[in-house]
Amino acid sequence: MVKKGQLTKEMILLKAADLFNSRGYFGASMSDVMAATGLEKGGIYNHFKNKDELALAAFDLVVSTNSARVKEHIDAGHTSVEKLVGFVEGFQTAVINPVFAGGCPLLNCAVESDDTHPALKAKVKSAIAGVLRALQSIVESGVARGELRPDLEPQAVAQFLFASIEGAVLLAKLYEDPSKMEAVVNQLKLFIKSCAK
Amino acid sequence: MVKKGQLTKEMILLKAADLFNSRGYFGASMSDVMAATGLEKGGIYNHFKNKDELALAAFDLVVSTNSARVKEHIDAGHTSVEKLVGFVEGFQTAVINPVFAGGCPLLNCAVESDDTHPALKAKVKSAIAGVLRALQSIVESGVARGELRPDLEPQAVAQFLFASIEGAVLLAKLYEDPSKMEAVVNQLKLFIKSCAK
Repeated sequence: MVKKGQLTKEMILLKAADLFNSRGYFGASMSDVMAATGLEKGGIYNHFKNKDELALAAFDLVVSTNSARVKEHIDAGHTSVEKLVGFVEGFQTAVINPVFAGGCPLLNCAVESDDTHPALKAKVKSAIAGVLRALQSIVESGVARGELRPDLEPQAVAQFLFASIEGAVLLAKLYEDPSKMEAVVNQLKLFIKSCAK
Repeated sequence: MVKKGQLTKEMILLKAADLFNSRGYFGASMSDVMAATGLEKGGIYNHFKNKDELALAAFDLVVSTNSARVKEHIDAGHTSVEKLVGFVEGFQTAVINPVFAGGCPLLNCAVESDDTHPALKAKVKSAIAGVLRALQSIVESGVARGELRPDLEPQAVAQFLFASIEGAVLLAKLYEDPSKMEAVVNQLKLFIKSCAK
């Protein structure tokens, strides 16, 4: 019985992750979750006490899934240039070959939550801060190891890479054309190479 | 009487522009519009036949207002480098000193509509295509006039500038800190200068 309950909870979460990431917190309703899971409202509330708890858990799942994929690409790089290129390519892979529907959860939830949902907004801020810190630290150690130009501002470089790649996701999603990311990714790779010492 | 009706319609539209641009199409309800305008539902439906018509008109208003401001900055430039810098600075001004609450309507509505609202999505695609065409044409004439490097890909440069500036808006809005745009804007200015011949 415990095992079946756990499986049901995971199934609800997987369906909710697709739904909330595609339709947004306000655009996805509990009726949508019921339809996608084939469960009654009570069956869902057995596992998640309300829409908020489910939506926040769904956000965490999509973010941690995508982060793990991007991190894999970063970690495959040896030099700081390779790691930064890995970040860009990891993001691109996550969009072209997604685990969950709906595009980047950071982009989606940042835009939706900023004026409407403080708990979700706090989660998005913390997740984006984590990405920015990781990028900044790659740039800092690249400068320290003499791989990257000493005049770089690591925080600014981190913000620039993140902002540009999220804008690229926006174009690819809106036009349903992953090649729309390509131009931005290529420009970012040139930028990253120009950061090398 | 006609004049009063027109004023009421404009007032509804102005309030709806703030509301829909901040809270999103699904996040803003007709009750929110009623509360913001002090009108009954019937008073609103007198002027807009449904939520969709109002939301789409609100989108058009915010986009045309922001576009006019960005265009002013572009037109103030004489060379193609100055015009591209004008684009970036115009966007920054529109975010730092906004006419309507809620940030960039292209970013907001692209993210919200892509999986949910075909009519809004069509409007966003057409508006963004217009921005990309304008940028591409600045780059093309810059190359033709020998101001910009002949190896530039005008379409790719346009997509890169647009994607990066929208990502910068995302950071500034989420952290409620316009200075978060600064780093991206500065990097883009360096990039634009690097495009000069």
